[in-house]
Amino acid sequence: MEIELINTGSELLLGRVLNTHQQWLCRRLADLGHVVARQIAVPDTATDIQQAVREALARADLVIVTGGLGPTSDDITRDLIAQLLGKKLRLNEAVFTHIKNYFAARQRPMPANNDVQAMVPEGAMILPNPNGTAPGLAIQILATPKFQIENTKSKIRNPQWLVMLPGPPRELRPMFDDAVVPLLRREFPLAAPFVCRTLRTGGVGESAVQEKIQPPLAALVADGLEVGYCARVGQVDVRLTACGADAEKIVRAGEVVVQQIFGANIYGFDDEEIEQVVVRLLTEKKKTLALAESCTGGGIANRVTNVPGASAIFLGGVVSYANSAKEQFLGVRAKTLQQHGAVSEAVACEMAEGAREKFGADFAIAVTGIAGPTGGSAEKPVGTVFIALAGTFGTVVERKLNLYEREAFKQLTAQQALELLRQWLARA
Amino acid sequence: MEIELINTGSELLLGRVLNTHQQWLCRRLADLGHVVARQIAVPDTATDIQQAVREALARADLVIVTGGLGPTSDDITRDLIAQLLGKKLRLNEAVFTHIKNYFAARQRPMPANNDVQAMVPEGAMILPNPNGTAPGLAIQILATPKFQIENTKSKIRNPQWLVMLPGPPRELRPMFDDAVVPLLRREFPLAAPFVCRTLRTGGVGESAVQEKIQPPLAALVADGLEVGYCARVGQVDVRLTACGADAEKIVRAGEVVVQQIFGANIYGFDDEEIEQVVVRLLTEKKKTLALAESCTGGGIANRVTNVPGASAIFLGGVVSYANSAKEQFLGVRAKTLQQHGAVSEAVACEMAEGAREKFGADFAIAVTGIAGPTGGSAEKPVGTVFIALAGTFGTVVERKLNLYEREAFKQLTAQQALELLRQWLARA
Repeated sequence: MEIELINTGSELLLGRVLNTHQQWLCRRLADLGHVVARQIAVPDTATDIQQAVREALARADLVIVTGGLGPTSDDITRDLIAQLLGKKLRLNEAVFTHIKNYFAARQRPMPANNDVQAMVPEGAMILPNPNGTAPGLAIQILATPKFQIENTKSKIRNPQWLVMLPGPPRELRPMFDDAVVPLLRREFPLAAPFVCRTLRTGGVGESAVQEKIQPPLAALVADGLEVGYCARVGQVDVRLTACGADAEKIVRAGEVVVQQIFGANIYGFDDEEIEQVVVRLLTEKKKTLALAESCTGGGIANRVTNVPGASAIFLGGVVSYANSAKEQFLGVRAKTLQQHGAVSEAVACEMAEGAREKFGADFAIAVTGIAGPTGGSAEKPVGTVFIALAGTFGTVVERKLNLYEREAFKQLTAQQALELLRQWLARA
Repeated sequence: MEIELINTGSELLLGRVLNTHQQWLCRRLADLGHVVARQIAVPDTATDIQQAVREALARADLVIVTGGLGPTSDDITRDLIAQLLGKKLRLNEAVFTHIKNYFAARQRPMPANNDVQAMVPEGAMILPNPNGTAPGLAIQILATPKFQIENTKSKIRNPQWLVMLPGPPRELRPMFDDAVVPLLRREFPLAAPFVCRTLRTGGVGESAVQEKIQPPLAALVADGLEVGYCARVGQVDVRLTACGADAEKIVRAGEVVVQQIFGANIYGFDDEEIEQVVVRLLTEKKKTLALAESCTGGGIANRVTNVPGASAIFLGGVVSYANSAKEQFLGVRAKTLQQHGAVSEAVACEMAEGAREKFGADFAIAVTGIAGPTGGSAEKPVGTVFIALAGTFGTVVERKLNLYEREAFKQLTAQQALELLRQWLARA
C-alpha cells in the first residue's frame, strides 16, 4: 500500500510556517505500520493543487491532503478536488448546523462566508471536527482512465481513498486519530501484524545509545527487528518495530534488552512526555509539587500545566528572574546571593527549599543558570545550570553545562529538572 | 523562474525528524524574491530520488536537493544524480585534502569511507563546506530530450541548475548563504522587483479579517496586489505581496489600507512575535513587568523569557495555581476569593495589583480562568478567563471566553494578555 501526503499552503512555500503536519502524520502512520512514500507541499493555486493531487492519485492508494478547507478565498482545496473528481458540492445541513452552533457557543456572529465550509462533495464521508468549523472529508475513488494514463506504477488496487484534513494542528490531530485511523484499519488492513514500540530515554547521547544497544540487539535484528533512533534536545527515542507473525514477540524481546541496559534512563513510552510521567507519578503517590524557576523562566511550570489534571498535584511556582524576587518570594538569603552568586549550588538549594516551604509542597524543583549569550565567566561559563530538588529527604543538586541557544537551553534544562524528579519518584 | 526543493531522507517519511530545511530555504528564497513552486520529500531509495529529480528537472529552472551527501551507506544522492545526468564521478584532490584536514584538526582518525565525499560529478561546481566534510555541488544542465519529453511546462529556459546541499543544518545554512545566494544572483537575476510585507493581527477572526479588508483592497488587487491569510490561535497574518516595477508602491498602499482598518489590532510585522513587541516596547520605555498567572500556568512568563534581553524588563512572576498561593504570594484576600471565586474580575485585579506591588514593577498582568475540561458553571462556563493589567493608571480587566483544548486555551490566553499590555503601551 502506497500513501502520499500533500500539504497545501502558500505560507509553506514562502517559509512562513514550519510544516509540522509532515512529521506528525508520517509519525502516526509509521506507528500504524504505514510508511508514507512521498510528501509534497504546493501553494494555494488551482493548477498546483490539482496537478499534485492528479499525480499522487496516479501512484498512491491513499492520498492525504492538508489545508485549504477554511472560509477564506485562498481555501480552495475542497472545490478543486471536487472539480478534479467530477463531483458536485452540496450544502450539508448537519455540518452547517455544527458551524452555526460553533459560533453560537462562542457568542460570536457567524461570518457569511463560513457556509462554504458546509459544502460537501457528493458521496464524501464527513470527518467531524469538534475543534473547529471545517469538517474533514474522505472520498473513495474508482480510478478513472484520466489518472490511469499517467500511472507510473503497474498495480494500483481499487478503491483508492482521498482524505482532506483541515490545516490547524489542533483540528487535524484529533480528527486523524478519531476518524482517519478507523478508516485506515477498515479499508487498508495490514497484510501481517505490525508492532511498534518507542522507548524514550533522557540524559544519554545518540551515539552512546546506539553503541550500547546495537550489539545485544543483533540477534533480534537478524530475526526481523528494526531499530530506529530519534535524537531531540536532551533525549533519544529508541523505536523498535517488527512485521509478521512473530512481530509482538520480537518487539517485546527487544524491549527487554533495552530496558536492561537503559532502565533508569527510560522515562516513558511511545508519545508520553516527561511532564505527563511526572504528573502521573505524583498523582499516584498523592504528592504535591512547587517550582522555583530562574533561567527556565516559567518553562517548567508551562509544561507541567499542559498536562490535564495537573492541578491535583501542582501548587504553583515562582519565576524569580530578578534577584530581589529570589529573596522576597523564596526566602533566598542576601548573603548567599552575595557570596555564591545567583547561579550557584547554594542559591539553587535555597530556592528549592524556600519554594517547598512557602507553597507547602512535598517536592520543589529549582533551577538557576546562565542562558547567555552574555553573563558567563571562566568558572561558570554560559550554559551553566544548577538544578535542585527538595523533599522530605533533604535537598539534592546537579550541575549541568547546556550549550544551546536560548530556547533549546530552556527546553533542555526543563527536561533535566523534570527527569531529576522522575528518577526520584521512580526509585521511591 | 521556477524552483523546486527535494528533501531526501527516510527519517522524514517515518516522521522521526521535523523538516526544518523546508521552512528555512523557502523563507531565504522568498526574501530574495524567488518563491519555491513545490517541495518534495522522498526516502533514501534510488528509484524515489531519481524519479523526484527527473520530474523536478522537467518543470523547474533550479532544483535544490538536500541530504544524502554523507559517508554512510544510505547517503546515495551524489551517485544517483551523477548517474541520472550521465556524468562520471572523479575524486577531487582539493576536497579530499579538505576532508583529511577536517579530521586532523579535530584529532580524529578519518574513517575509510569518507573519501566518497570527495567524489565530484564531472563539470560540477564545488560549494565549500567549512562546517563539515561533504561539499555542496552545483551542476549546470542543458536540458536533454529525456527530460523534455516529460516536460509539463512549455517554456523551460536553459540552462537549468541542480544544487545539492548537505543535510545537517549547521552545514547547509552557511553554505546556502555563502555559495548558493551568489550563484542565484548571477544566474537568475530578478526580472522585476518583488515586495512582501506581513501584518500580524490579534483578536480578530480569519473570516472577519478577510470580510473587512477584501472590498477596500479590490482596486489594488486588480493592480497586482496578492493578499494571503495565515491563521494561528488568536492571530491572523495578512501577507501582502506584489511583483513588478510598482511592487513597492502597491504593497505600501495595501499596507495603508490594512492599517486604517485594523490599526489597533496589528501587533507586529513580518516575523515579529507579540512577546518580542512587548519586550521591545517596555525596553524603549524603560518600564518593568511582573506576572501573576493562574490558568496559563507559566505560559506567559515562558514566552517573555524566550526573548533575548527580557531580563532588562522582566522581574518575575508567580504561577498561583492553588488558591493558597494567590493569598500567600500575591496578597489576594481570602474574602475576595470566597465572595467572587478564584475565577473572577475581583481576583484577577487583586492578583495584578499584588504582583505589581510585590515585584515593584511598573506593570503587572494577571490571568485567572477555567481551562477545563471540568470546573465550569452556568455563569462561568469552561473557557472563561479574566485578564487584568495593573499600572500607575490603575487596573483594567477583560473577560474572555476561550473555547479551546488545554494547550491552545493557554496559548490564546497568553496572546490576549500580552495584547492587552501591548495596546496599552502603544497608546501611552
